[in-house]
Amino acid sequence: MNKKGVFEQIDFNQVAITDPFWTDRMKVHQDVTVDTCIKRCEETGRIENFVKAAGGPQKGAFKGRFYNDSDVYKVLEGAAYSLMHVENPELKEKLREIIQKIGAAQEDNGYLLTYFTLEKPELKWTDLDKHEMYCGGHLMEAAIAYYQATQEKLFLDIATRLADYYMTLFGPDKRVWIPGHEEIELALVKLYEVTGTEAYLDFAHWLLEQRGNGYGQEGDEARFHHDEYREDYFHHDRPVKDIRHVQGHAVRAMYLYTGMADVSKYKDTGYEDALYSVWDNLINKNLYITGGIGPSNSNEGFTKDYDLPNDTAYCETCAGIGLVMWNWRMAQLEGNGKYVDVIERALYNNILAGWSLSGDRFFYDNKLEADGKHKRSKWFDTACCPTNICRFIPSIGQYIYGANKENIYVNLFINSDTTLTYKDRDLKVQQITQYPVDGQVEMNFDYDSSEDIQVCLRYPDWCKSATIRLDGKVVTPRVEKGYLVIRVSKGQKLTYIMDMPIEKVHAHKFVVADQGKVAITRGPVVYAVESQDQDGMIEKIKIPTDSLLVLEDALVSRYPSIGCYSRKGKVIAKLIPYFAWNNRGTDKMKVWIDEAKVDTLYKY
Amino acid sequence: MNKKGVFEQIDFNQVAITDPFWTDRMKVHQDVTVDTCIKRCEETGRIENFVKAAGGPQKGAFKGRFYNDSDVYKVLEGAAYSLMHVENPELKEKLREIIQKIGAAQEDNGYLLTYFTLEKPELKWTDLDKHEMYCGGHLMEAAIAYYQATQEKLFLDIATRLADYYMTLFGPDKRVWIPGHEEIELALVKLYEVTGTEAYLDFAHWLLEQRGNGYGQEGDEARFHHDEYREDYFHHDRPVKDIRHVQGHAVRAMYLYTGMADVSKYKDTGYEDALYSVWDNLINKNLYITGGIGPSNSNEGFTKDYDLPNDTAYCETCAGIGLVMWNWRMAQLEGNGKYVDVIERALYNNILAGWSLSGDRFFYDNKLEADGKHKRSKWFDTACCPTNICRFIPSIGQYIYGANKENIYVNLFINSDTTLTYKDRDLKVQQITQYPVDGQVEMNFDYDSSEDIQVCLRYPDWCKSATIRLDGKVVTPRVEKGYLVIRVSKGQKLTYIMDMPIEKVHAHKFVVADQGKVAITRGPVVYAVESQDQDGMIEKIKIPTDSLLVLEDALVSRYPSIGCYSRKGKVIAKLIPYFAWNNRGTDKMKVWIDEAKVDTLYKY
Repeated sequence: MNKKGVFEQIDFNQVAITDPFWTDRMKVHQDVTVDTCIKRCEETGRIENFVKAAGGPQKGAFKGRFYNDSDVYKVLEGAAYSLMHVENPELKEKLREIIQKIGAAQEDNGYLLTYFTLEKPELKWTDLDKHEMYCGGHLMEAAIAYYQATQEKLFLDIATRLADYYMTLFGPDKRVWIPGHEEIELALVKLYEVTGTEAYLDFAHWLLEQRGNGYGQEGDEARFHHDEYREDYFHHDRPVKDIRHVQGHAVRAMYLYTGMADVSKYKDTGYEDALYSVWDNLINKNLYITGGIGPSNSNEGFTKDYDLPNDTAYCETCAGIGLVMWNWRMAQLEGNGKYVDVIERALYNNILAGWSLSGDRFFYDNKLEADGKHKRSKWFDTACCPTNICRFIPSIGQYIYGANKENIYVNLFINSDTTLTYKDRDLKVQQITQYPVDGQVEMNFDYDSSEDIQVCLRYPDWCKSATIRLDGKVVTPRVEKGYLVIRVSKGQKLTYIMDMPIEKVHAHKFVVADQGKVAITRGPVVYAVESQDQDGMIEKIKIPTDSLLVLEDALVSRYPSIGCYSRKGKVIAKLIPYFAWNNRGTDKMKVWIDEAKVDTLYKY
Repeated sequence: MNKKGVFEQIDFNQVAITDPFWTDRMKVHQDVTVDTCIKRCEETGRIENFVKAAGGPQKGAFKGRFYNDSDVYKVLEGAAYSLMHVENPELKEKLREIIQKIGAAQEDNGYLLTYFTLEKPELKWTDLDKHEMYCGGHLMEAAIAYYQATQEKLFLDIATRLADYYMTLFGPDKRVWIPGHEEIELALVKLYEVTGTEAYLDFAHWLLEQRGNGYGQEGDEARFHHDEYREDYFHHDRPVKDIRHVQGHAVRAMYLYTGMADVSKYKDTGYEDALYSVWDNLINKNLYITGGIGPSNSNEGFTKDYDLPNDTAYCETCAGIGLVMWNWRMAQLEGNGKYVDVIERALYNNILAGWSLSGDRFFYDNKLEADGKHKRSKWFDTACCPTNICRFIPSIGQYIYGANKENIYVNLFINSDTTLTYKDRDLKVQQITQYPVDGQVEMNFDYDSSEDIQVCLRYPDWCKSATIRLDGKVVTPRVEKGYLVIRVSKGQKLTYIMDMPIEKVHAHKFVVADQGKVAITRGPVVYAVESQDQDGMIEKIKIPTDSLLVLEDALVSRYPSIGCYSRKGKVIAKLIPYFAWNNRGTDKMKVWIDEAKVDTLYKY
């Protein structure tokens, strides 16, 4: 089957990121986060569970939550990506050891979830919400990553055995299964892409099609055994093609939509209306300015349109990462830059905030206002967020470029050198930029042909105006689906200037929590105030509508701070990037700040 | 008496403007506008009136309007300024000839106004609105300019004779006079500054003090002999210290406030409250986005607060120039950048629009919306506007810098080299910038001392955010009265980046004419649409709130145009700088354009 998407991603192993902002974060990931996550998985018995499971069913011996296997897989995925950036024989050997333990824990028929193997083998496949396929999906993603990093099939074989095993139990004319936590669907598509086995793709499609259509045949008692949540929480209240509004658990929703978009790249699913509609609903009525989603702690998810409280905002780090995953599929599917706008918003704010600058502390929930008690943790019993950070950060290179037969798509602006294939010939693309410290990007193209190339530069949603120069001369682009399209002749230097002032942002009038308030942003970066920078007087800040904003020395990290002054010169506030908050001790913090209206004849 | 202002201007003869934007305009001024204006004064009998007057009173021989002498003076003033920029012996000789004719027309007692000398000698000093002192004021300004350009006292002697003559008739214990069209007041202060004769300053103060206090003693029948206008139009309805709101004829108002500020620099006038209040009223409720003032044709002036129609906007070029004159005095008086914001707004929009790119066509009124009939003229019977352009353009260098014992004030951003005195030592200041094409200004200082200098960089009202670097490193400034204040050590390069995106501007909700509309600006430059760039469909333009704006190749002049596109890529509009409109034939034009609201969760 052919891929239907408008463009394909350029994998991160073709991209050398040389950007000070990101190389610093990626070095912290390599040096601190990967090791920390492996160590925590060891300390908490997550890896030992596999060893125990390999010894046969020992009731009571399982340690932790039933989905803990998934954390190990996600760390392995991140560690494998890390190996694709820097050689690390010691780490590679460590991964091989863990994978061997995982392989040993796989049952003869292919089953693999240490919780059931150790704890309740008789209850396998009876509770739709026990994350059996969720963990399986993460195993597959990790196995693919390890295969790509090492070319070793060790882990991939475990993954295909597992997938094959699933298909012996479930599928057309077999048992019905509705995974309580989506993930397997997107993993199966990845497995199809790596192995070429169409059955995995078909199985992913079949799994999606089961939703909203009741349960299995009489006698199959598999159900969501949950007191609190109903079908809508699990996305089993309607066929997926009929989805129009976000609902339920935010991470599960993102993984579901990702799977739907993935399958739609290859098959006629009829999911497009659902995907476009639910995207509109999420982005226009349910998205925090930080790219966080899911306001509620009680269901870890969505409530009602425009319900975006700040102090109780849940905005799980994983949900932000899921949002990126889904939007990247949508970007490829439709070839529209608006999806990358969402990726960028989540990336530079919600997700980065979930991860300390030191690399070893994590937020599960990313509030937009804190009373001085909220702080990052070393780890969690449910450790999905740290482990998602672990696999997400080394993969960001893949979101930079896309390509098809006509165009090179420039999606993210990150100082880097990339080699890709364009019209069957080698093309080296260089981005020289300090983004997001400023909005200027210089691009050089070294193409193995004398022909022009056509470049689509994303025009970000935060950006109000831009200029493109070729060899210094202003040129008029064609505009198409959120991109500025221009032809570049051999040897021409392209300069893309996205005007990046400090902006004052106001929320829609229906967002009750933000009325009378203003948020300060610059480019994709949302700013916040921490009490320690305001002489402790964070409650008293009122930003006048005519205030002067000045980019200033960094107060934390190396990213510029913002000084906000009255026209007469009074210091109103000092702001730091939201992603850098809570790195100098626990403190009060706000993204949305009270505004003092000054009556002016013209409002810019 | 000491000067009370916060800073003093650096005269334009100390500033070498090397800016492509302005050198081009100044060359057009020198090559075209000066000659054109002299020629028109000759063709229309304005110079011949002096020759006739020198021959004695020949009733009926006067040609034109009673205030036509003033046009000759203003052209002489501009031509003299021009001589301070470029040597031109031929022009200098021409000026001397004209000045000799003027001198010959001065009556023995010092009287000089060819209209009354030739037409109605018996009616001298009977009608307050016959511009006798208005013309006299312009003579003084021209004489001072000629003296500064040539060091020749020829013209200055005529001016002092005239002033001395005025004081023989009017003053304490003499006749009362309320000049119908202000101008003499500011001219007398200039004359005081050049000659050191305090009597001129005192006389200016006395003239101002007569306003709002009735007329002369019984038997003195001098009145405003006007059917239509009352005392409020002439600023004779209340003492000037009680002024709180703009009213009446816009140019007269500006010249009055200028004179009030001028006298207040040297004397305790008690005018400050009036000046600050009327400024607030003008700027916050009566200023067009172009810096134009005075909406009404019928009184060439103000109506009521927020009455700012576009298609019938009067916005006389002279009023814009008067606005600059007044605000420059205010800037010096209070040391506040907000006054220079107004100067810049009027300069780059209202005033420049009044003058064709070719240099020989002029607008009297500068509408913000045109139906395709409004066009520039070669000249006018009342030629105040061309002649004001003639004297204003060569003087813009004086608005760039100010200095006092502590600070160098950087007011306008124009590529230039300047030599000034700072703490009694020579300081060379270099501005390297493409402003207003972009918002980056590099400054180098060559100071004849090892001490630091303190620089106040204006933070423009259109600017929402800025960054200052010293030798490339971001620094945190102190903010004071609209300036960013920093200390610069010897040899340090200062870079001032004013973020200059294309902005969408909305007017106050009380401005009826602009509701539902948006104006597009970039930095100080207001943009407009002309019908010819929209395939003639100017009426159909609706700019979506989420449109993409791109700086593009110039459509007229060499200043970039703006392309406005929908998110999907449709061309919505092509915009040109307002100052460049009506240079490609007569056309329909709009500054305020209909807006189509797109509902978004966050508004930048």
